[in-house]
Amino acid sequence: MIAEIITIGDELLIGQVIDTNSAWIGENMNLIGIKVHQITSISDDREHILKTLEEAETRADIILITGGLGPTKDDITKTTLCEYFDTNLVFNQDAYKNIEAIFLQRGYTVTELNRRQAEVPANCTPIMNLNGTAPGMWFERNNKIFVSMPGVPFEMKTMMSEQILPKFTAKLNLGFIIHKTILTQGVGESFLAKTIEDWEDSLPKSIKLAYLPQPGMVRLRLTAIGNNKAEILNLIEEQDQKLRQLIPDYIFGYDNETMESVVGNLLKKHKMTVSTAESCTGGRIAHLITSVPGSSEYFIGSVVAYSNRIKEAELGVKAESLEKYGAVSEAVVREMAEGIRRKFGTDFSISTSGIAGPDGGSDEKPVGTTWITVATPEKTITQKFLFGEHRGRNIHKAALAALNMLRMELL
Amino acid sequence: MIAEIITIGDELLIGQVIDTNSAWIGENMNLIGIKVHQITSISDDREHILKTLEEAETRADIILITGGLGPTKDDITKTTLCEYFDTNLVFNQDAYKNIEAIFLQRGYTVTELNRRQAEVPANCTPIMNLNGTAPGMWFERNNKIFVSMPGVPFEMKTMMSEQILPKFTAKLNLGFIIHKTILTQGVGESFLAKTIEDWEDSLPKSIKLAYLPQPGMVRLRLTAIGNNKAEILNLIEEQDQKLRQLIPDYIFGYDNETMESVVGNLLKKHKMTVSTAESCTGGRIAHLITSVPGSSEYFIGSVVAYSNRIKEAELGVKAESLEKYGAVSEAVVREMAEGIRRKFGTDFSISTSGIAGPDGGSDEKPVGTTWITVATPEKTITQKFLFGEHRGRNIHKAALAALNMLRMELL
Repeated sequence: MIAEIITIGDELLIGQVIDTNSAWIGENMNLIGIKVHQITSISDDREHILKTLEEAETRADIILITGGLGPTKDDITKTTLCEYFDTNLVFNQDAYKNIEAIFLQRGYTVTELNRRQAEVPANCTPIMNLNGTAPGMWFERNNKIFVSMPGVPFEMKTMMSEQILPKFTAKLNLGFIIHKTILTQGVGESFLAKTIEDWEDSLPKSIKLAYLPQPGMVRLRLTAIGNNKAEILNLIEEQDQKLRQLIPDYIFGYDNETMESVVGNLLKKHKMTVSTAESCTGGRIAHLITSVPGSSEYFIGSVVAYSNRIKEAELGVKAESLEKYGAVSEAVVREMAEGIRRKFGTDFSISTSGIAGPDGGSDEKPVGTTWITVATPEKTITQKFLFGEHRGRNIHKAALAALNMLRMELL
Repeated sequence: MIAEIITIGDELLIGQVIDTNSAWIGENMNLIGIKVHQITSISDDREHILKTLEEAETRADIILITGGLGPTKDDITKTTLCEYFDTNLVFNQDAYKNIEAIFLQRGYTVTELNRRQAEVPANCTPIMNLNGTAPGMWFERNNKIFVSMPGVPFEMKTMMSEQILPKFTAKLNLGFIIHKTILTQGVGESFLAKTIEDWEDSLPKSIKLAYLPQPGMVRLRLTAIGNNKAEILNLIEEQDQKLRQLIPDYIFGYDNETMESVVGNLLKKHKMTVSTAESCTGGRIAHLITSVPGSSEYFIGSVVAYSNRIKEAELGVKAESLEKYGAVSEAVVREMAEGIRRKFGTDFSISTSGIAGPDGGSDEKPVGTTWITVATPEKTITQKFLFGEHRGRNIHKAALAALNMLRMELL
């Protein structure tokens, strides 16, 4: 089963918009076992669209089309599809109701231009657009399937996920597909791969594993395909449990969770508070924590102590510690965490001190050297890290590592 | 003059990599007056590459190819191009020297696999790759130009900018092309467009203007094409000066500058220091400031005062101000800025207090309401903003607006 993608829109060819749709479609088609053979991007030009459809039809079984469904006259995909399938537009009541509902919600009345968006080619099965006014269209001819979707990414993605992909799996008898993304922190991709090698090798054939590395974390995506939904859900659950036993310290969350939301939820659950004393992370940890809605419930505040003077005056770091060990040292980072915890009266505190770079490194303390402390009601835990050479990534990695240390204490 | 882009690589079709190259190439070809007609992404498959090249040749004058130039055996673009042009690979001494130099720099010795990267089709003009081991290739046949480039974005971009685009402009007699991007802050796209309407209408025909909005700022890109480089440089300079007179307060920088680097440079130049007292921005301003290398020269530190208790205890905000006006008020934000400036002994200080959302809004103070103060050695300036409903964007916009207020005081 071979698919092709055709993306239509002048904005793609002049570089105003990066085509992120195709990669998403390619990934998701691939996950249900359908290979994408070619992606073709063309402008809103009648002849070019017709020719591209014709060529794609000779090569592929499924042709997925995005874009060119807007209400303005430069959007000609719908009329060109009519021409391609030798049919005409008909008014669709359900599509119109959807348009009306969306306009009502936004407080507008439907214009003639938008009313026309409810028209679809007579030979297609319309697909509801839950997030916008342009319906999708499903065509079948000579054992080939054509699907036309809006180009707006979140409209297309919802339509694909909720309607088109299930329709493919049902129609082509591909079975159900379940994903679970496991988020890990504190371990590099190659070391992680080595650690879970046996588990990976023993995965059932119906489960696929993908490594998705990001700065400061590695995501593991499990995908299972099968005909019995409960069974494959079970299968994934089983493998996740095995993995949790194998690397309990690295897994911090699932799917769309973030380190800061996971930590926030734990603090809320325990009705505990936190403060931060940041040197090398320069406010990044406080920023991550406060990017979560409702974080004022558990986050009290922070002292960003970039200069040693502030470390002494505001956090009670001893002058002799600074002199004897330097600002990037176990002694100083401990005093920072204990200082802020006492001063701000929080249950937990986090502190960081390191050399983010690009300057300031030495043989003894190269760029990337970072000390992190978490102080709890019972104890003070300190860890030394050696990140890389890139300032931005060092700051981000230190912030994630610090939050992860706090998470471990909260468990 | 019509161009087409062919991107080669399995990773594009399975969605592992988003094709950002094509948009960049499309934009930059368009800027020198060459229209991109089609983008085709295909896998590393010999027959498919040959067929796609053949089809593209019937439609376009210029065919730009990226990807498939790596040293491993799945990368077959080079041998397939040999087949297409009915030629053979020859060893290129310059390309080899480049590979050797890169390996030497990284402390490796050249393997046989990498040595083969110095081979190029006999009929092409090799193009040096300043950032990698795979040379580019320039072919001409029957008045058509084919250019093959590596798929790694920064290798391709450098090659395009420094060698291929100038070669097109020279060969096709397109003249020189100069860009200047003007960065503005504190004004929305439509209001900005209205304000500079007359200036825009009076732009010489040889200058094109593009609006490039980003969260919290609008970039204006001027592009001039002409045969006399000094003349078009002059032309752009002239228009920039006119614009500066028109909107002196909105323009904060050029090209790749950032608000935090511009503010940092001003502080360094004046040998002045800054501190921040952040409520709604939660450390975002400190994070932006400290993301600039060398910021410890002028940034002393910050107090993130998320709870009112910290605003009182650490920043000297009066209990009666909090009670009478609330935390999100002119009185409180002034006391915060003056408090941190005094406490941290800095020349300047910034403070923020607002409702980032999604909760916490009221009729009187809706989500997005934000007070910002900048305290200087002479005075304290406060401004009220009403941003939008999106928490993340509100925080970022407030941080940029605050840094911009500081920038204005530093001028």
